[in-house]
Amino acid sequence: MNKPGVRDDSRLFGPFIGQSGYFISINRNKKSMTLDIKKEEGKRIFAELVRKSDVVVENFRPGTMAKLGFNFESLQRIKSDIIYASISAFGHDAAPGYGNKAGYDIIAQATGGIMSITGQPDGPPTRVGSSIADISSGLTMAIGILAALHKRGKTGKGSKIDIAMMDVVASILENAIIRYTITGETPKRMGSWHPSIAPFSTFKTKDGWVVIAIGNDSLWKRFCKASGLESLANDPRFETNDSRARNSESLEQLMTEWTSTRKASLIIKLLGEAGIPASPINTTADVVNDPNINHRGMILEFEQPQAGKIKTLNTPLRFSLASGETKVEPAPLLGQHTTEILSQLLGCSEVEIQKLKNQGVV
Amino acid sequence: MNKPGVRDDSRLFGPFIGQSGYFISINRNKKSMTLDIKKEEGKRIFAELVRKSDVVVENFRPGTMAKLGFNFESLQRIKSDIIYASISAFGHDAAPGYGNKAGYDIIAQATGGIMSITGQPDGPPTRVGSSIADISSGLTMAIGILAALHKRGKTGKGSKIDIAMMDVVASILENAIIRYTITGETPKRMGSWHPSIAPFSTFKTKDGWVVIAIGNDSLWKRFCKASGLESLANDPRFETNDSRARNSESLEQLMTEWTSTRKASLIIKLLGEAGIPASPINTTADVVNDPNINHRGMILEFEQPQAGKIKTLNTPLRFSLASGETKVEPAPLLGQHTTEILSQLLGCSEVEIQKLKNQGVV
Repeated sequence: MNKPGVRDDSRLFGPFIGQSGYFISINRNKKSMTLDIKKEEGKRIFAELVRKSDVVVENFRPGTMAKLGFNFESLQRIKSDIIYASISAFGHDAAPGYGNKAGYDIIAQATGGIMSITGQPDGPPTRVGSSIADISSGLTMAIGILAALHKRGKTGKGSKIDIAMMDVVASILENAIIRYTITGETPKRMGSWHPSIAPFSTFKTKDGWVVIAIGNDSLWKRFCKASGLESLANDPRFETNDSRARNSESLEQLMTEWTSTRKASLIIKLLGEAGIPASPINTTADVVNDPNINHRGMILEFEQPQAGKIKTLNTPLRFSLASGETKVEPAPLLGQHTTEILSQLLGCSEVEIQKLKNQGVV
Repeated sequence: MNKPGVRDDSRLFGPFIGQSGYFISINRNKKSMTLDIKKEEGKRIFAELVRKSDVVVENFRPGTMAKLGFNFESLQRIKSDIIYASISAFGHDAAPGYGNKAGYDIIAQATGGIMSITGQPDGPPTRVGSSIADISSGLTMAIGILAALHKRGKTGKGSKIDIAMMDVVASILENAIIRYTITGETPKRMGSWHPSIAPFSTFKTKDGWVVIAIGNDSLWKRFCKASGLESLANDPRFETNDSRARNSESLEQLMTEWTSTRKASLIIKLLGEAGIPASPINTTADVVNDPNINHRGMILEFEQPQAGKIKTLNTPLRFSLASGETKVEPAPLLGQHTTEILSQLLGCSEVEIQKLKNQGVV
C-alpha cells in the first residue's frame, strides 16, 4: 500500500529495464493499491480492507501503526480473528533506546552478528552478498503466519506476530552462539573454513577454487586414498574431525599442495567418483545456466509491462500436488490494482472510486 | 532416527561441553530413537510410526528411501494422507549427473552462487559465516510443511515436498539473479557494499567499523547536513541513489575521510539523533549480551544432561497468543526416547521392546 503518487524506494533501485529490475524480482504475484491512510476516508477504507482480510503485514517503524489508529487491539475490534504480522529492526517489544529506529538489511546483518563472522581472518567484517536479513525475516514470518492460521483454524483466535530482524539474524548464527556461551571465546572470521568441521572449505586449484567438504572420518580416509595423500590418513594431527579442525592450518597447507597443481574440474571429477563431496563455486551466471536449476524449473520467464521478457527465480518449493504450471503475475505498477481492489473486494461504485481519486485518498 | 549404536556425525562437532555443543544447539526439543530400518522388523516398526505420523522428514541422498522400500508411493499405501518432506543437495527430481551426490551446507553455498558474491572485491569467494544453506533450507521446508498441512486440511490429501538445497541458495541470491539476466553481467563480490543502494555499507572509523545505510535521497540530504559534508549534498555524482551507486568509489573515499577521524560510537550517536540508520557491527559476544536480545527473551537457558546449564538462542517468532514460557527440552542423548516412543506411541510391551533390543533392531 502506497500513499497516492509516492513510490517504494525500491522502485529506484537498479538495474533498470524500463523499470527497476530489483523491484520486479521481489514483487511478482503482488497487487499494488494506493491509499492515504492518514486521511479519515483512507482510514475507513483501510478498516474495510482489514474486515475482508486474514492477515495484515506491515514493516513500519514500531509505533507508526498505533499512531495511525491501527494497533493490534484496534485491528481486533475491526476483525476479531485478524492475524497482525509485524517486521521491524528491533521489534515492537524492544528495550529502551531500540524502539523506533529504522531498519535496513545491513543494519540487521550488522547488529545480529553475522557480519562479524563473515569474511577473511585478516579482512574486515563483511556483509553477506545477498540481503539475508530481509530474506530470513521474510521466511521466518511466513512460518509465523502459517502457524497463526493453523491456530486460528483450531481456536478461532487471531494473533499478533512481532519479529525483530536483529533477532532473526542472531537466530541464524547457528553454532556461533553456543560456541561463545560455552567457551567464552568470541567466534572470529575464518574465510571459508567451518569452525567445527574440517576439511570443509575452499581450496586453491590451478585454475580457480573448489570446495571440498568432509564431515566424518571415513570420508577423510576415502579422500586420502583418492588423492594419493595416503600419509595423511595415518597422521595423528588429522585422525578425527576434532583434531583436523584444531590443525586446520597445516591441513589447508598440505591439501593445497595437492589441489594447487591440478585443475578444478579434474579434482571435482576425481573426488566425485570416490564419493567425496566436492564442487565448483558457481557464479550467478553459472547458476542461471546450470542444467539442474533449469531441469527443476527454477528459472521463471514472464512478460513484465514496460520491461518485456524477464527471467528470474522460482520458489524452491516443489509440491507433488501442485499443477505443473507456476502461476506468474508480473510485478505491479504503482497503484495498478487500486480500482480492482476497491470495486471487486469492497464493492465500491465507479462514482465512489472517482470521488476517492479526486480527494487524493487513493 | 539412528541405526542402533551409530551416532550422528554432528555429535562429533565441537565445541564440547560433556557432549557436542554444536549438536545441543540444533537439537533441543527433539526426541531420539534408534532403529535399524534395513532389518525386516525395523521396516515394520517404521511403517507403524508412519501410520501414527503427519509428516515424514528425511535428508538421505536421493534414492535411499526408495531402496529401503519407503518412497512416497509406499508411504501413501501405509498412510494415505502422509506428507513426505525431503531435503537433498540437488533434489529428488534432478538432471542427469546430479542425482545422488551428497550435500553439505558448503556444497550448496558453493553451487547455489552465494559464495561467489560474498567477500572482498580483491579476495576469494567466501562462505557465509553460518550454515546459511542448511538454515534457509530448513526454514523453506517448514513453510512447505505448514502449507501442505493446510492443503491436507482442505482436501484430505497429503503430498511430497522435494527441496534441493542448491535451489534454496539460488532463491536467496535475490537481486543478483535479475541483475545477471537483465544486464548479462555476472555480479561480483563487493565487500559490504550493496549493488543497488548507496551508501549502504561499512565505513572505517577511528576505532573499528560502523554501518551507514541510506536508502533514499532525503536520508542522503539529511546525512550531508548531520555530518557537515554539506558540499556533497549538491554534488551531481551523488544526487540520486542510482548515481551514488554508480559512483560508490568516490563516495566511499569522501565518507571515509569523515568517518575515519571519528569514533564509531560518536558517529552512531550523531547519525542516530538525525534519524539516519547507522549501527555498530556486533560480535557474537555483543549479540549474546545485547540489552534488546535479552529484553526479547532471545537467550534461552536450560539444563542439558552431561553438560549442565546451557545458553543458546530462542526462536525469533513472538506470538501474542503464546504463553510467556518457552517450552524447552534438552537435546536428546542417542536413543534416549526409543523405549518411550515404542511403548507410548506404538503400544509395545516391555517384553517386545526387550526382544527388539536383543535383535539389534532398536
